[in-house]
Amino acid sequence: MFKNDLTGLLKIEYPIIQAPMAGGITTSKLVAEVSNSGGLGMIGAGYMTPSQLREQIKEIKQLTSNPFGVNLFVPNEFKMTEHEIKSANQFLTPIRQQLNLHQKEHFEMPSFNHIFETFMEQIKVVMEENIAICSFTFGIPSKEVMAELKQSNMILIGTATTVREAVENEKAGMDMVVVQGSEAGGHRGSFIDDNQESLVGLMSLIPQVVDTISIPVVAAGGIMDGRGLKASICLGAKGVQMGTAFLTCVESGAHQVHKEAILHANEDQTILTRSFSGKWARGIKNKFILEMQNHEIQLPDFPVQNTLTQDIRKTSAAQNNQDFMSLWSGQSPRLAKKQTVEILIKNMIAEANSIEAK
Amino acid sequence: MFKNDLTGLLKIEYPIIQAPMAGGITTSKLVAEVSNSGGLGMIGAGYMTPSQLREQIKEIKQLTSNPFGVNLFVPNEFKMTEHEIKSANQFLTPIRQQLNLHQKEHFEMPSFNHIFETFMEQIKVVMEENIAICSFTFGIPSKEVMAELKQSNMILIGTATTVREAVENEKAGMDMVVVQGSEAGGHRGSFIDDNQESLVGLMSLIPQVVDTISIPVVAAGGIMDGRGLKASICLGAKGVQMGTAFLTCVESGAHQVHKEAILHANEDQTILTRSFSGKWARGIKNKFILEMQNHEIQLPDFPVQNTLTQDIRKTSAAQNNQDFMSLWSGQSPRLAKKQTVEILIKNMIAEANSIEAK
Repeated sequence: MFKNDLTGLLKIEYPIIQAPMAGGITTSKLVAEVSNSGGLGMIGAGYMTPSQLREQIKEIKQLTSNPFGVNLFVPNEFKMTEHEIKSANQFLTPIRQQLNLHQKEHFEMPSFNHIFETFMEQIKVVMEENIAICSFTFGIPSKEVMAELKQSNMILIGTATTVREAVENEKAGMDMVVVQGSEAGGHRGSFIDDNQESLVGLMSLIPQVVDTISIPVVAAGGIMDGRGLKASICLGAKGVQMGTAFLTCVESGAHQVHKEAILHANEDQTILTRSFSGKWARGIKNKFILEMQNHEIQLPDFPVQNTLTQDIRKTSAAQNNQDFMSLWSGQSPRLAKKQTVEILIKNMIAEANSIEAK
Repeated sequence: MFKNDLTGLLKIEYPIIQAPMAGGITTSKLVAEVSNSGGLGMIGAGYMTPSQLREQIKEIKQLTSNPFGVNLFVPNEFKMTEHEIKSANQFLTPIRQQLNLHQKEHFEMPSFNHIFETFMEQIKVVMEENIAICSFTFGIPSKEVMAELKQSNMILIGTATTVREAVENEKAGMDMVVVQGSEAGGHRGSFIDDNQESLVGLMSLIPQVVDTISIPVVAAGGIMDGRGLKASICLGAKGVQMGTAFLTCVESGAHQVHKEAILHANEDQTILTRSFSGKWARGIKNKFILEMQNHEIQLPDFPVQNTLTQDIRKTSAAQNNQDFMSLWSGQSPRLAKKQTVEILIKNMIAEANSIEAK
């Protein structure tokens, strides 16, 4: 059941991709277990150094002989001025006080050149390690990079939040595209359309994308079980990518406080914020989001704001204090369960198969 | 196919409800044709006088012997001060200039008492005319009204945008509930949760609602064809309610300019605004929405703002000028077609039946 061109291209049993959640959530155990259970495990490598990435790839190869993939952040140009950084940092003063954190004035800001070089090294690692599948968020790599990757026969997956972004991914040579509905947790993958325009629900987004492009479409956003899988396929997708559903699994590396926050949240408690990183992202409403809400439009771009808030997020997590952590979640937290990856995938397929829909 | 407790309760052939779009869109021809084609036609009676409502009911009875329904707006308390009205009206000055409209200073503002009396008279008409199905938007009628309606054996349908609102509808005795996803066009039906919180996509909203309540759930928002119908049923809904898909039908009374705007729009061109009426609603972005965007948070509540903009909307429509009309649309305008109701429903059922989803 559920065999199609997507499962064929990815050489997997079920059309279920584990979303590449960056920041330590996609442990080797999580990735390997997803691939061992018939889905596609993905390393969220966005924030990794090339050597960390290589190490994790080697570790996962010890745990599974099935295909798994790597997701990379495509570097975006960004502006920053001393003044902007200073004034954005001032908004964080009351928050550092609440955490008993030293006020911070100096930050090692990443340069675009450095980020771009890291990205190129990550690509090199992925190729050297013969990774079969690579996906991209926040944009599309340059023609040169795409050509090099295509030559190595890697399956390439793009991310889109609108029809226009899906078309650009197809034009650039992606083999398939993840369409991210407004329901999705974590960072918005939009790279052409701005926040408001790119917030299209999956019920609308999937059919409009599949009517326009020819490559397989993967649905992402709020999908947690067999109902979401089957519905996505009815709408024309060939598979699903799930983040929140895997985040609360026992194998995930998400902070316990983050898992618990999702397991106790309702569908109306998530909100979009750019206060954590400078990019819009969906997470469970907490003190940090509410206290920063009036300033969020003026904050610097990703990754500048992300660097400014790093000590806050880390300290809050170390204190098991959910108030100032980024509690990324999609809009279906009521459907989240604490379970193993194996059970999640098994039940999901059984449920999808049992739906009659007549 | 698609026979279930919803089609049983409503005594219809297919689980397809035509959304009750107020303001002249739901012509007698449209409503009757939907019911004649096996769906449920609905009169959008929100802005009608009791006698207009009675007249339309009588007209539709001539055109169909199948069941059809009436939708009413539950009156909400609202505040207004002279100062608020004056300052909100000032924002409209440049817009009236562009339309060569006389500046307006005096408005006949509705009182809550008058609105409430009208609502009670509408209820009386619905009961006297033996309407089989009545749905409600913007809230739940009082216990007394609900008890009276229940005694008459009318099927009652509530509207919800969150799980909490769905639970309240079930508690109040509704026979079924329409869950309105963030994809939906026109006014948000939320009555407990505010705008941001109640913007939940259908992929998330449907399963979380059906897991919580026992009455049948109808999915609304971005559904345009057999794919949306089948997907909604996979997610646990018993039927769908469609607005935009019926709005562009030849039988609908929507302004030609409105129909054409939808037929030429993309999925990323709709936006939420409260500038037209004082309530959040989704429509195609136009000059009015953009020019009012910076003021929209300060504007008075529904129906005060609606009264203030009435001359503008009417004049813009009379001039066939889409710039200042409310071009309500859901997030799937690429799927809209100019077709008859009969063809829409026929193709929809055929498509839904043909989807294998394996």
